[in-house]
Amino acid sequence: MLKKDTFAPRPPMGWNSWDCYGAAVNEEQLLGNAQYVADNLKEYGWEYITCDIQWYEPKAVSNFYNNFTELCMDEYSRLIPAENRFPSSADSVGFKAIADKIHAMGLKFGIHIMRGIPRQAVHQNTAIKGTDVKAREIAQGFSLCLWNTDMYGIRTCEAGQKYYDSLFELYAGWGVDFVKVDDIANTEFKPHDPYSAREEIEMIRKAIDKCGRSMVLSLSPGPAVINEAFHLSQNANMWRMTGDFWDHWDKLYGMFERCEKWAPHVKEGCWPDCDMLPLGKISKNCSCLGDRDRYTNFTPDEQKTMLTLWSVFRSPLILGGELRENRAEDLEIITNRDIIEINQYSAGNRQLLRNRSEAIWYCKDKNGNDVFALFNLSDEEREITLDLTEHGMEGTFTAEELWTKEKDTFECEIRCRVTAHGVKIYRLSPFHG
Amino acid sequence: MLKKDTFAPRPPMGWNSWDCYGAAVNEEQLLGNAQYVADNLKEYGWEYITCDIQWYEPKAVSNFYNNFTELCMDEYSRLIPAENRFPSSADSVGFKAIADKIHAMGLKFGIHIMRGIPRQAVHQNTAIKGTDVKAREIAQGFSLCLWNTDMYGIRTCEAGQKYYDSLFELYAGWGVDFVKVDDIANTEFKPHDPYSAREEIEMIRKAIDKCGRSMVLSLSPGPAVINEAFHLSQNANMWRMTGDFWDHWDKLYGMFERCEKWAPHVKEGCWPDCDMLPLGKISKNCSCLGDRDRYTNFTPDEQKTMLTLWSVFRSPLILGGELRENRAEDLEIITNRDIIEINQYSAGNRQLLRNRSEAIWYCKDKNGNDVFALFNLSDEEREITLDLTEHGMEGTFTAEELWTKEKDTFECEIRCRVTAHGVKIYRLSPFHG
Amino acid sequence: MLKKDTFAPRPPMGWNSWDCYGAAVNEEQLLGNAQYVADNLKEYGWEYITCDIQWYEPKAVSNFYNNFTELCMDEYSRLIPAENRFPSSADSVGFKAIADKIHAMGLKFGIHIMRGIPRQAVHQNTAIKGTDVKAREIAQGFSLCLWNTDMYGIRTCEAGQKYYDSLFELYAGWGVDFVKVDDIANTEFKPHDPYSAREEIEMIRKAIDKCGRSMVLSLSPGPAVINEAFHLSQNANMWRMTGDFWDHWDKLYGMFERCEKWAPHVKEGCWPDCDMLPLGKISKNCSCLGDRDRYTNFTPDEQKTMLTLWSVFRSPLILGGELRENRAEDLEIITNRDIIEINQYSAGNRQLLRNRSEAIWYCKDKNGNDVFALFNLSDEEREITLDLTEHGMEGTFTAEELWTKEKDTFECEIRCRVTAHGVKIYRLSPFHG
Amino acid sequence: MLKKDTFAPRPPMGWNSWDCYGAAVNEEQLLGNAQYVADNLKEYGWEYITCDIQWYEPKAVSNFYNNFTELCMDEYSRLIPAENRFPSSADSVGFKAIADKIHAMGLKFGIHIMRGIPRQAVHQNTAIKGTDVKAREIAQGFSLCLWNTDMYGIRTCEAGQKYYDSLFELYAGWGVDFVKVDDIANTEFKPHDPYSAREEIEMIRKAIDKCGRSMVLSLSPGPAVINEAFHLSQNANMWRMTGDFWDHWDKLYGMFERCEKWAPHVKEGCWPDCDMLPLGKISKNCSCLGDRDRYTNFTPDEQKTMLTLWSVFRSPLILGGELRENRAEDLEIITNRDIIEINQYSAGNRQLLRNRSEAIWYCKDKNGNDVFALFNLSDEEREITLDLTEHGMEGTFTAEELWTKEKDTFECEIRCRVTAHGVKIYRLSPFHG
Repeated sequence: MLKKDTFAPRPPMGWNSWDCYGAAVNEEQLLGNAQYVADNLKEYGWEYITCDIQWYEPKAVSNFYNNFTELCMDEYSRLIPAENRFPSSADSVGFKAIADKIHAMGLKFGIHIMRGIPRQAVHQNTAIKGTDVKAREIAQGFSLCLWNTDMYGIRTCEAGQKYYDSLFELYAGWGVDFVKVDDIANTEFKPHDPYSAREEIEMIRKAIDKCGRSMVLSLSPGPAVINEAFHLSQNANMWRMTGDFWDHWDKLYGMFERCEKWAPHVKEGCWPDCDMLPLGKISKNCSCLGDRDRYTNFTPDEQKTMLTLWSVFRSPLILGGELRENRAEDLEIITNRDIIEINQYSAGNRQLLRNRSEAIWYCKDKNGNDVFALFNLSDEEREITLDLTEHGMEGTFTAEELWTKEKDTFECEIRCRVTAHGVKIYRLSPFHG
Repeated sequence: MLKKDTFAPRPPMGWNSWDCYGAAVNEEQLLGNAQYVADNLKEYGWEYITCDIQWYEPKAVSNFYNNFTELCMDEYSRLIPAENRFPSSADSVGFKAIADKIHAMGLKFGIHIMRGIPRQAVHQNTAIKGTDVKAREIAQGFSLCLWNTDMYGIRTCEAGQKYYDSLFELYAGWGVDFVKVDDIANTEFKPHDPYSAREEIEMIRKAIDKCGRSMVLSLSPGPAVINEAFHLSQNANMWRMTGDFWDHWDKLYGMFERCEKWAPHVKEGCWPDCDMLPLGKISKNCSCLGDRDRYTNFTPDEQKTMLTLWSVFRSPLILGGELRENRAEDLEIITNRDIIEINQYSAGNRQLLRNRSEAIWYCKDKNGNDVFALFNLSDEEREITLDLTEHGMEGTFTAEELWTKEKDTFECEIRCRVTAHGVKIYRLSPFHG
Repeated sequence: MLKKDTFAPRPPMGWNSWDCYGAAVNEEQLLGNAQYVADNLKEYGWEYITCDIQWYEPKAVSNFYNNFTELCMDEYSRLIPAENRFPSSADSVGFKAIADKIHAMGLKFGIHIMRGIPRQAVHQNTAIKGTDVKAREIAQGFSLCLWNTDMYGIRTCEAGQKYYDSLFELYAGWGVDFVKVDDIANTEFKPHDPYSAREEIEMIRKAIDKCGRSMVLSLSPGPAVINEAFHLSQNANMWRMTGDFWDHWDKLYGMFERCEKWAPHVKEGCWPDCDMLPLGKISKNCSCLGDRDRYTNFTPDEQKTMLTLWSVFRSPLILGGELRENRAEDLEIITNRDIIEINQYSAGNRQLLRNRSEAIWYCKDKNGNDVFALFNLSDEEREITLDLTEHGMEGTFTAEELWTKEKDTFECEIRCRVTAHGVKIYRLSPFHG
Repeated sequence: MLKKDTFAPRPPMGWNSWDCYGAAVNEEQLLGNAQYVADNLKEYGWEYITCDIQWYEPKAVSNFYNNFTELCMDEYSRLIPAENRFPSSADSVGFKAIADKIHAMGLKFGIHIMRGIPRQAVHQNTAIKGTDVKAREIAQGFSLCLWNTDMYGIRTCEAGQKYYDSLFELYAGWGVDFVKVDDIANTEFKPHDPYSAREEIEMIRKAIDKCGRSMVLSLSPGPAVINEAFHLSQNANMWRMTGDFWDHWDKLYGMFERCEKWAPHVKEGCWPDCDMLPLGKISKNCSCLGDRDRYTNFTPDEQKTMLTLWSVFRSPLILGGELRENRAEDLEIITNRDIIEINQYSAGNRQLLRNRSEAIWYCKDKNGNDVFALFNLSDEEREITLDLTEHGMEGTFTAEELWTKEKDTFECEIRCRVTAHGVKIYRLSPFHG
């Protein structure tokens, strides 16, 4: 096991500002949600508080990106927090004050960055820390992000490594525990080579290893390139399996196929990522994806299906909603200890079956009990059956359904009715009559 | 674990007639090699004796296929052994007599088949056992093999399933233990859908499960489709990761990349297959691939590299040479108990590093010892080092190189010189000074 | 100009049995439609009477193909007419009697063939005329048609050429004037090489040139491969630009893009083909494409749009309906002398504009008058304008609309209202006030 | 015919600075070559003098591009000549003084531009003439050139059109007669949409039509997209069929296939472009393509083959060498009146045959004489024959070979020996004995 794997021994759990605040989260919102996690969720395992994209942009107000807008930058071509949005960052404090507060709550702090160097640094030809060269010499003029005009990619060269080193030195100084690097796991820019940022991933890996602080490395966006699974697992802790995930059934349905493909690559320190959980109150700043300032479109059944899949697959769990507006049911669904425990501690996880109407997953929980999740992917309630003898299990079993806590007894097979888009997840133990 | 996984709890080991006899092996050669295995190799784990392609063709003389040639067929459109090549098969005995002899040696018997139904059956419109329909009704007229004119694919239909059932009923009656099905894992016929034979794979799975005999299912040719890894693992015991493998360094070099990609899919009952081992005397009947009737082109170093890779990856091990012409060194290399044990019993197998010049693999042997294989992929001798501390191993270790049995001591790192295209594979144990 | 170009100095015009009778036309239907052409259409230029696919199959009853069905074949592996469908073909007469009757009407006779040799010839291993070899030696076992099980492709070899020579010798003896060869211009079998039958096209070209009779060579199906336009123009007289064309607006709409692409390749003896005109009573034997035994779905406006496009582009004009069931309006639309004259004799044809809503074409008629066709591709009536001065035409013009014969006067621009999916085609002449 | 077609009624002929001076031509070199053309070549038809890429860059010294370098720009975000390289351009004169001098020589003046707006304008957010908007609002941040860091593409919007209008207004003021627009005919940036600059082509077309001056529009680089031939012919006067052409036989060999494909698209005002003629002294500033400051690698035979192909195909003819260093033979080959006349005035041009060893082209010269060019594409001298009767020519003909002026007599066929990579081009006239 690589050292970097020890930074994320279990799937990371936490909160990220994107789903509710887009590119425009501010200090109050960040700390407010952190406090909520500390007060209500920490005991269940939720711990990372991540500030998503554009924290260096003073004019950001939604989930849209302003083209060619001015960014806050230090003398070494490094982006720094916009003071109008993060007042405590003034006077070169950066995110240190915020990180300190979050750490004081017993939580961990994460930030989002785009790979590369600001285009404004390149065109102003500003300095690179620890080198004699200027920004223009390390930028790759044709390497850019298709959906955001802020950055150029970094050329593979010593000074380029120095720039990345200087970034992570800065972040380590702030106390950053988690970095979500964007426009890097699948670069749309080169359709024939979506993994064209391979060398930048390696530079970032080295920069983290040098910085002296354990930081989880999360790569976006997806879909990650399955042929690069080895390289990903050597360099990152988590990587997105999909494009942006939102609260539409077709996206959740599609995740089952992706989980099937990536399941063999899940292991300690290496967590293929199903993306954030769009639960509770989302889209507060966002107008492009359905109604603004709304609660999730997912039905309660779909929410359980999502959390169950993310758990039997062992995806990272990152909440996306404004937690302070959680309703009782929103809180309840993310505090199911059994489900979280499967996400964090299960073993032998694998899909047993998938067709258009059903998927069945299996794992062992941390006590060695067999767990079966039976998903109804169809639009109508249906009976789902699983022949346990086909899987080497003979005899009679006591079963507990982990969402309802209902008990049942199964002999040789599991047979249950599952609502449309719903799930039953059973923990089995031998029957002692 | 599926029942079919119990048919191949460890990577299958054995011998196959293709590399030496092409499409033209005969009874004497088959049984002669079986006897050699029984006498010399069985104790090391080698057990399957497989008769490869065209055993139903009277005129086959080499590794070339005769176009539109007459095949031996029973009244139910099923191919049967050519009597001129397999005299004991006469009088409807089929392969039963040969299988019995092989079983009597304590070995297992395998055959090769092409997916589908003989074109001659279709154009003669012969009967399908257990049905009222004739061959034309179950054949898919556009589904064929690009390199062999014998067969049409089977349409997905009840009578098609009955045909496959009737085949495996016949094979079970003969005593077949292993079936290598060809033109099925990657059908060149449909470049946009190399897995177009998906339904035929499922029909064959069902036919085996019905036939009442445990038969290992091996799929060819490769490269298998990595996006179908789940389906393959649900239906087959082994599947080829590559096109035909022969004794050229570039093919062996390329196998390292394939092993990297398929390693996460290796598990009990599911063995991605690096293809046969072209060792000893090969190409006895073959003229198209280098000299005829020659010993392997692989150097001793390359042979060890091949066997080591196949072992740390846990590929099936299938010998391809005419065993009775083995030289002492040919026998020695395939009877290294340590290497075979790693192939059969190791755990936690994974690649640690791969670049153009080196590859390093890791596993635990059956006693829980750490094993490291360091491959030199370059064309010159080189020193290879591995920092053990990066992998959580501190202190001093005693090491045994498993090919030379030489002992060494390593502290914090392995450092060794490896010949071009060669390998060192070390089993480590804590040093007790 | 090549000699073969003299076989089709103008776009061929005629009738073909496919749209109404599918694979099952018979002698009475063929001659009945020929008589209708002789009586009603010949004076307008319609002349070819073509018997489409499967005339050698006794059991054909619709537009479906029977898999692996028995075909009528002579001793030299050549398909011959099914006597039950073409009684006059008995006693080795073949199509000679029918051709003679059609010639006596002053018309020309065409047949459809599939490239290759019957699979039944290959599996029976029958003779090839003028050679010592048998069918198996010239067949390419993996070269076949995806939608019909009758044939194998021919290998590029001397005996293969002899087989094609023997076919066209037979057809010349019958008096065939036109051959539509199918599964040859775009072979779906090889997605990466849709022009894989290139050598067979060349063999057929040579066979026609040797046979001593002028036969128009028409290639199907489409879409033809535009990168092979030179090769097509060197070898064939017409070739399909599209898959099968039927009476649905979306197919007609799509033809505008295809005409744009192929227009530069239209020239004497070389006629990219928009496919048959599904007019009047069609689908008499066909059940798979909409209602059976129905009149065309095209509205009168769409019918005029189709005939106008086929004419300004100079596509071959091949009627597809059962002509004897023509209503007055069906006859009228195909006997517009002005439109046909443009198809047969116009020059300088080219598209001037195409967007989602409009297309405008230009040509000079045989008297040198400027002709403009303004198509409304949208679903609502609209005004279409054309600035004549942009095309170098100043002053006032008298215009005649060629469908309505209405006269108009245009000054500097054409401005007209055109119904949805409709067209106005104007012949302009300088105004003499 | 469109008005823009009148700007280039015949294939443009001239000189361009790229092949000898790369990105670094200066005023003396430009005017010196213009004077040479006026003195030696004008009488043969050569007339355009074009200043190629980077004339706005002070630091350019070779054919390499400096990344993110400062460009000379006016207050309206428009690039202007670098005064250090073009002294007469000072004081806002731009290229006017140079254009005036070239016009005074009886020649025409051309410039090269990259599509889009300077990135420096965008990052400095400078003004757009005739609008209230700034550069950032019209730039498309993800649209760029893969091989040059100067520009962003323009968004399709009114202000974007205004920017292009302002460019051509400036060029018209300078007296520009020819504009070669680069990174526009095939934008490597979008592999799935190489014609993604379609709207920019249309904006440039409109801007030229508005500017009040007849400017030939030439698009680069190639290969142009053949499916867009209609759009190209509607908007441009010439467009590159290939990537950059240099003096290597394989590139010349490859041009035969491209000419085959594009020949049907050649017409008045629309000239698919085989690219510059690398003749005489080239690569004076260039070090990346073979030796620096060298004479062409093409043999005399290859030079004639090139000029003959460019002529029978009717490509634009643009000289690339430093003309003042022409040797006698260099001048002679570009002043063959017969060859130039065929380029400028021939009709009915078409390829008759092409295989690996030979190509034969045909056209009529301006007097209606038949002209045949027989190319030997093989590496050895060979006899080439052409059966004239296959092309409808009976009888005896007098022939003049247009390079050697040798006379010959042919009866029914042309038969001649042609050197390796060489050509014979014959003008035939009926024999009057």
